[in-house]
Parts: sequence; structure tokens; C-alpha cells
Amino acid sequence: MRAFLLIAHGSRRTESNEEVFALIESLRPKLESSYDLLQAAFLELCDPGIGAAIDSLIEKGAQEIVILPYFLNQGRHVSEDVPHEILAKQSQHPDLTIKTLPYFGKASQITDIVVKLLAKHDA
Amino acid sequence: MRAFLLIAHGSRRTESNEEVFALIESLRPKLESSYDLLQAAFLELCDPGIGAAIDSLIEKGAQEIVILPYFLNQGRHVSEDVPHEILAKQSQHPDLTIKTLPYFGKASQITDIVVKLLAKHDA
Repeated sequence: MRAFLLIAHGSRRTESNEEVFALIESLRPKLESSYDLLQAAFLELCDPGIGAAIDSLIEKGAQEIVILPYFLNQGRHVSEDVPHEILAKQSQHPDLTIKTLPYFGKASQITDIVVKLLAKHDA
Repeated sequence: MRAFLLIAHGSRRTESNEEVFALIESLRPKLESSYDLLQAAFLELCDPGIGAAIDSLIEKGAQEIVILPYFLNQGRHVSEDVPHEILAKQSQHPDLTIKTLPYFGKASQITDIVVKLLAKHDA
């Protein structure tokens, strides 16, 4: 079984965390042909944490987990905190295949989205 | 004169802040017909701060500033901290036109980008 795990920062504000769960739901119909399981996790301030989310995916039968860190820039969270938690789980489960994609902000589309948001504002 | 101001979180890691400055440079050729000035600012951990960036744009002659909060989710930074600093500057400069766009993560393209990032990984 193959799982997709999106890792967001997490917030004290429920509205913020709910956006992440809503993103997972909007992804579900588009990813159901490639992924058996979709899951959100948070670095801090909201459950599930990264380790708990990976454990839950393993319990559900995941053998491969593809992870997208949902962050815009490569601060400490992206460069240290998130990889640290993933590595800890990988060493607990050496047979689990974990692939971590570049963080969201590396997407080549970012510049064009900003241009479009501004064009929409001017329209 | 019309200015675009992108407000990012800011990081202790230089590499993270440099990404924001690089984003401004990648936007420059695409926005030069609509904006006379482009500027990055940071909520914390990197200069210029929001107030200093707005002051600098005013000094350069900006009469209208369009602001994009470069955040993925509506946590406290988006809902309180950034608006608070913008409002403080607006009350100091009542003749300045400031328009704050919805934060970046509200862009309708987000779901499709995630799908494309995963498809690229599988390719």
C-alpha cells in the first residue's frame, strides 16, 4: 500500500489547521488512483504529529510513504526539524520506503501564481 | 507610483530569506509593466521588517502599495500580526493607498500544484 503524507507547520488557530485537512480532501479525488492513503501531519501545535501520522499509516498497511513538506521556504523547519522526525521513523521501520519530495515552495509554478494573483486583483 | 510588497515570515537561515529576494527578482520582468517598485519584507528574523519596507517604498515615491502575504495558511501571522503592522503604517500615512491581497495559500492553484509535484515524482 502506498500513502501520501503532507506535513504542514500547524497553528494555534483551528481555521489554519482546517485548511490543511481541507487540502487533503480536495486532493483525494485527484490522487485516489495513485495513493491508497492520504494523510495530513503537523510539525507542531496540532495533531497528528509527524511520527504519529507515519505510525498510523503503517498500521493501515502502508509500505511506501511519499512525503511533501508543505512549507514555502527552506528555514530550519524544512532543513532540520521535519527531516529529523522522518529519519527517526525511518530508523524504527527500516523496511518502510519513505520518499521526501522537495518542499512545496520549490515548485516552479510559484512565480506565475503570484503574477496571476496580482493580475486578478487588477482585473 | 505603484509598489508591490511581498511579506514573508523570515528565517534565521540566510538561504530561506534569499529565496524570498530571489522570488522578487524572478517577478521583476513579469511585473515591471504594472508596478514601479517591487519589495520584499519579513515579519520577523530578517530585514527589512514590514514597517521599514513600507517607509522605504513611500520614500521612493509610492502612492499605492499592493501587498501579498506570502504564507500558506491563515495562522496568527496572517490573521493578526501582518494586518496589525500594515494598519499601523496606514494610520501613519492616511493618504497612502494600501491594498492587501488574500494570503498566497488561498490561491486556487494550490491543489493542482501538489498533484503535479506528485506526478513529476512518479514520472
